[in-house]
Amino acid sequence: MKKTISQATIDRLPLYFRTLRLMESEENKIISSDELGRKLDITPEQIRKDLATFGQFGKKGIGYDVHELKEQIGNILGLQNHWRLAIVGVGHLGGALANYTNFSSLGFSVVALFDKNSSVIGSAINGIKVNNVIEMNAVIAEAAVDIGVITVPAGEAQDVADLLVAAGVKGIWNFAPIKLSVPPEVSLFNEDLSIGLSALSYQMSQ
Amino acid sequence: MKKTISQATIDRLPLYFRTLRLMESEENKIISSDELGRKLDITPEQIRKDLATFGQFGKKGIGYDVHELKEQIGNILGLQNHWRLAIVGVGHLGGALANYTNFSSLGFSVVALFDKNSSVIGSAINGIKVNNVIEMNAVIAEAAVDIGVITVPAGEAQDVADLLVAAGVKGIWNFAPIKLSVPPEVSLFNEDLSIGLSALSYQMSQ
Repeated sequence: MKKTISQATIDRLPLYFRTLRLMESEENKIISSDELGRKLDITPEQIRKDLATFGQFGKKGIGYDVHELKEQIGNILGLQNHWRLAIVGVGHLGGALANYTNFSSLGFSVVALFDKNSSVIGSAINGIKVNNVIEMNAVIAEAAVDIGVITVPAGEAQDVADLLVAAGVKGIWNFAPIKLSVPPEVSLFNEDLSIGLSALSYQMSQ
Repeated sequence: MKKTISQATIDRLPLYFRTLRLMESEENKIISSDELGRKLDITPEQIRKDLATFGQFGKKGIGYDVHELKEQIGNILGLQNHWRLAIVGVGHLGGALANYTNFSSLGFSVVALFDKNSSVIGSAINGIKVNNVIEMNAVIAEAAVDIGVITVPAGEAQDVADLLVAAGVKGIWNFAPIKLSVPPEVSLFNEDLSIGLSALSYQMSQ
């Protein structure tokens, strides 16, 4: 069964997942949509609507089974794959992502780093060695990388994307402000940090 | 006239704005929703629906006036305010944001940096001096900061938010993975970099 799920719903699922995992670790068995909503500043109606997209999880008047719902949301998001990431370009942003601990809380791990700058090649960030981009094929195969993260300048991003695709990654998370071309079998997500800032600007202008 | 606009629509407006600004710089006068859609991988129907939320911009069969539409979207997003940012916590992520050039393309500028670590206080990033957090009140007033950006560890984020609010910022952009309390007159946007990654995971799992 495949359904089209709105991007806004998909965006909320990691929030649900993280809250449920925390609740599970605190040995809570059941949570109501009211309680989940209070923790996340989302209306209970919205939560029930989001979760109903995927099937019948909760019991009316009782609530959701914390463990079961967490597992189901994790599976919907594909987190059970424990995706392995390689970051290409360990400047400020790449370095920040290599150190960003929220990823591991969702099952992602950074397993390889690349740069073309000889001053950083051979150094390590968070215990992970920075490799030369020319070694990409071998390193990505050996480290079983699933996702390539592009944090190089816009002018270099398409070349890096081509290298990542040739090396066999299944997905690309692009931070460079440019539209990339990748084959249809490779998933692509374009990140833009100024979108959050624009949303804040909008809110401040109301 | 105030209308409730969906978050998804607000998220697309900066993309429209940036594309229109680029087109204006290339001296294009008119753009159709088809052409804008092709550039952004968004359906023309979606674009027409988004823009119709704000009023009547385009002319049927002709298209949108590039300059006029860009100005209107900028005004809706509040970009004409040219918001001034202060980043608190210049570790990896704070340093990356201080160097992130996409902000300036939307009219935002980073005007102040803060840290509590004496090893970085007094240094400069991108020509901006890193101040001691204890000087926050004076520096924020002098630099006319509108938005505080929190890139400190979760355990310190609420204290920093309180300091920023006391110093008079109108908005907070929070990267710490924690729910902050701020007075209702202060706008708050919680950023979570793993949401984009989760969306990619979802896409790769289909």
